Amino acid sequence: MKASQFFISTLKEAPADAEVTSHKLMMRAGLIKRLGAGIYNYMPMGLRVIRKVENIIREEMNRAGAVELLMPVVQPAELWEETGRFQKMGPELLRVKDRHERDFIIQPTSEEVITDIARQELRSYRMLPKNFYHIQTKFRDERRPRFGVMRGREFTMKDAYSFDRDVEAAGKSYEAMYAAYVRIFERMGLVFRAVAADTGAIGGDRSHEFQVIADTGEDAIAYCPDSDYAANVELAEALPLIAQRGAATQALTKTPTPGKSTCEDVAALLKLPLSQTVKSLVLATDEKNEHGETLKTTVWLLLVRGDHSLNEVKAGKIEGLKEGYRFATAAEIDDHFGCKPGYLGPIGLKKPVRVIADRTVAAMSDFVCGANEADFHYTGANWGRDLPEPAVVADIRNVVEGDPSPDGKGKLAMQRGIEVGHVFYLGTKYSKAMNASYLDENGKPQLLEMGCYGIGVTRLLGAAIEQSHDERGIVWPVSMAPFSVVLCPIGYDRSAEVKAAADRLHDELQAQGVDVMLDDRGERPGAMFADWELIGVPHRVVLSDRGLKEGKVEYQGRRDAQATVVAAADVGAFLKGRLAA
Amino acid sequence: MKASQFFISTLKEAPADAEVTSHKLMMRAGLIKRLGAGIYNYMPMGLRVIRKVENIIREEMNRAGAVELLMPVVQPAELWEETGRFQKMGPELLRVKDRHERDFIIQPTSEEVITDIARQELRSYRMLPKNFYHIQTKFRDERRPRFGVMRGREFTMKDAYSFDRDVEAAGKSYEAMYAAYVRIFERMGLVFRAVAADTGAIGGDRSHEFQVIADTGEDAIAYCPDSDYAANVELAEALPLIAQRGAATQALTKTPTPGKSTCEDVAALLKLPLSQTVKSLVLATDEKNEHGETLKTTVWLLLVRGDHSLNEVKAGKIEGLKEGYRFATAAEIDDHFGCKPGYLGPIGLKKPVRVIADRTVAAMSDFVCGANEADFHYTGANWGRDLPEPAVVADIRNVVEGDPSPDGKGKLAMQRGIEVGHVFYLGTKYSKAMNASYLDENGKPQLLEMGCYGIGVTRLLGAAIEQSHDERGIVWPVSMAPFSVVLCPIGYDRSAEVKAAADRLHDELQAQGVDVMLDDRGERPGAMFADWELIGVPHRVVLSDRGLKEGKVEYQGRRDAQATVVAAADVGAFLKGRLAA
Repeated sequence: MKASQFFISTLKEAPADAEVTSHKLMMRAGLIKRLGAGIYNYMPMGLRVIRKVENIIREEMNRAGAVELLMPVVQPAELWEETGRFQKMGPELLRVKDRHERDFIIQPTSEEVITDIARQELRSYRMLPKNFYHIQTKFRDERRPRFGVMRGREFTMKDAYSFDRDVEAAGKSYEAMYAAYVRIFERMGLVFRAVAADTGAIGGDRSHEFQVIADTGEDAIAYCPDSDYAANVELAEALPLIAQRGAATQALTKTPTPGKSTCEDVAALLKLPLSQTVKSLVLATDEKNEHGETLKTTVWLLLVRGDHSLNEVKAGKIEGLKEGYRFATAAEIDDHFGCKPGYLGPIGLKKPVRVIADRTVAAMSDFVCGANEADFHYTGANWGRDLPEPAVVADIRNVVEGDPSPDGKGKLAMQRGIEVGHVFYLGTKYSKAMNASYLDENGKPQLLEMGCYGIGVTRLLGAAIEQSHDERGIVWPVSMAPFSVVLCPIGYDRSAEVKAAADRLHDELQAQGVDVMLDDRGERPGAMFADWELIGVPHRVVLSDRGLKEGKVEYQGRRDAQATVVAAADVGAFLKGRLAA
Repeated sequence: MKASQFFISTLKEAPADAEVTSHKLMMRAGLIKRLGAGIYNYMPMGLRVIRKVENIIREEMNRAGAVELLMPVVQPAELWEETGRFQKMGPELLRVKDRHERDFIIQPTSEEVITDIARQELRSYRMLPKNFYHIQTKFRDERRPRFGVMRGREFTMKDAYSFDRDVEAAGKSYEAMYAAYVRIFERMGLVFRAVAADTGAIGGDRSHEFQVIADTGEDAIAYCPDSDYAANVELAEALPLIAQRGAATQALTKTPTPGKSTCEDVAALLKLPLSQTVKSLVLATDEKNEHGETLKTTVWLLLVRGDHSLNEVKAGKIEGLKEGYRFATAAEIDDHFGCKPGYLGPIGLKKPVRVIADRTVAAMSDFVCGANEADFHYTGANWGRDLPEPAVVADIRNVVEGDPSPDGKGKLAMQRGIEVGHVFYLGTKYSKAMNASYLDENGKPQLLEMGCYGIGVTRLLGAAIEQSHDERGIVWPVSMAPFSVVLCPIGYDRSAEVKAAADRLHDELQAQGVDVMLDDRGERPGAMFADWELIGVPHRVVLSDRGLKEGKVEYQGRRDAQATVVAAADVGAFLKGRLAA
């Protein structure tokens, strides 16, 4: 392809609303163009990357035995009412009424539609297993769209759905998708990690996120460098850091801590390690009647060590908090603790609260906690002596670097990631709600066992750039790059020799199936090189009059500090070697 | 590909709501599955056809110098307000509000978005000409979706938009797209015709529809078998059928025609040719104030010959009717004619009306028309003697078979077509409304000259099937077929020889790039053959134990009445020959 047959539009500066690097670089390199909040045009340069990503996904999905179809963007609400998602989902589900005032939704995913297809088509055990996927436009009306295509509202997703006869077979489908995802992200040349993720109400351990490793990632990942353990911090189990509770050695002492309302400040003031302090977090749950009126409110006190943080996903799994909780109001806190936040603790409560201690907190002795009196903390607090044993002991904190790995094989390290894929075992959640069953060998109807498998196609562009860029621009893996090779002739519009050599090399490479771009715009060398470094094409060949007179061209890989001089006659073979590397 | 890795689902009977052949066959062959009114899932078999269509379109668009990008499905209403289409378009434009109550639309086309891109990107004459296209999901909330994918609500369309510096350059872009469309539909193996179409308010002659010829088509096409003239009947010029008006030879006579309210009945009763009668059609136009209140109503009497029909598009171009007209109400007719419909005519009006005579009517003499009295007609009516010459003489009728061709080269014939493509010169309609300009050589801003070019991707499936099917099912052109070749082994699950031969042939063809399907389902031969005839795969090879023992297989083309015996060793070469034919 020649630049004159294409469309290249780069910017010196990123627009002010572009916050993260990938968003800035995508705008500057002319991959995307903003149409509205979280809604982007994919410009020709960006679309080429999308197509390469889609093709890799398609090839590997097909290789794994999945079958592609295409489900609509605009879907009737009836199906979404069958599963209750039409009612339950918040405003992120874009709802629309047609000319007859019938309800529709703009698909964020397609569980309902595929389950509707399955209950009509997959009537017998002979037709199982089956895995259907599509690559289609999705919409999620994010409250605050941001990070360019990484948290946009309209995006392209590959979503696959497997149907199996039983849990065991569903496990095989899950494993096949897991393996396909590994191949997909490997082929894309990404550094990634498959991490165990929360399964929510489904339960079990069949939920993995595929995270592209990047310092700027929204997700925190805990992994063990000495084993294959890796989990989203949301899920990663925090073992107790104290094997056995020590005996009490100090007396309970109310200590003045004026103005010191955080554990850090208190520890500093008292010259104690932060790991001697306990943090108090107050939640509330409401029991409501059918009219939504609150019948009863329960207040909960959650205790984590001062150097730890509450894991809200884990808290949400505790009996009593499962149905949903909120942070307590100032009035509720005052009512139960007789004190404002900053000095709260489990000793000397005004009214009873449900106390949940993190595993580590439950093993602490001689600890520091709020005294439920402004500007005072207790030191030397001990379970059983100064306060009752906690009602519930549970894992409610986030793991931190250095925690023991839950598999017992070393210590946890942390890194950040961008979720680009998710494989998830659904069980019969949707097939039960929609009565999607097949007939088994005995002619008896059985619910279909399902799994769902998503890849954020457009998000992958942002994630790859977050992972791989430098001060000059994007550094694409060759499999994702809009072009594999760019030819930069100097004086294409002035020198017949340069033009002839560039055209010949372009035609030769193209005939060999190399995805080559010839920049025939006649730009100055500096501007031309800057454009292609910004766009991130992996391989560049510069052709100049002077070089050609000596039978030479200059090659430079996008990551190379220096150019390499190559004999003009050999450059085709040289490039093929580089591309195969 | 093997059937076991794919998804095949055929039906013996079409669902009751499938009216037309293509819809029935698409449902029966498992290409589509209904999700809602005018909304379909494209099942794996159907999606393969879509991809083949898309690839042909993409290749030819790229060859013609157009550049692919991707614009969003959900588009902010602001841009549509700039052109006024948000306000003007009816309920076929699906409108939606996001969580912040901001207005959006689900794109039916993308003129506004591409013009917004152009006004930001195409800043200089040096960047012109440019032609952008995308292949994307569209939605049009049809009042009555029908004919399956041919008039669905959600559909896939390729829409391209050209930007040029002046009218002449825009003409070249138009011609390039016209030529690309010819190549596209030729490559698809369709019998089609490019026909001149209405340009509406844009004017000029740069509007052509690409019509797939099929008896069941919604559009009527007039063409001249002796020249290249072809036009949509909406547009085709109707020349006057009488060169010069004859002298009056009869007296005006009020003749009883009890109960004969149509021209046909009156001509039969009076034993006169239908071409001696004149049909009266009464329209009305309203002049309104800014509050939408009617200030004044004008009644119009349009006269066409008894054997002709009114062309509403042509009527809509007449001064006074351009801004919109309606059929007159019974009360308005009674008020102006003193008579109910069926006996209306231009003689003896109660109140003045604007009379528009078709060119042929204006040349008639001694004609028959309603007497504005129930159960009476006039015979022997003559212009100038019995009634004033018509206020306006214009082409307001539809052409009919046998009319003289407007190019003077013969007589018109008629056929029906399905519109699958449209090339349209837009001029500055959108660039003016959205102030999309470029700077010319003198640094002066000039409005961009635009054209738009659409192809209904999903509609093409229906159109191809309407054109090419038989009593057994679809007969795909090879370039559109979901598979080029199907291998039907008899006893694949029982005979090791059959299995080995079928697998070998499958692998051999696949390695040669042939799009081959091996039916390894183990179906009975009759059911298997019926499936593939219904699905419409162009080439079939049957492998059986008996045949293989003699070193033979059976080949049958989808259009062939008989199978051909081919040496098993030669079948690869034989098929390649057939595919190249």
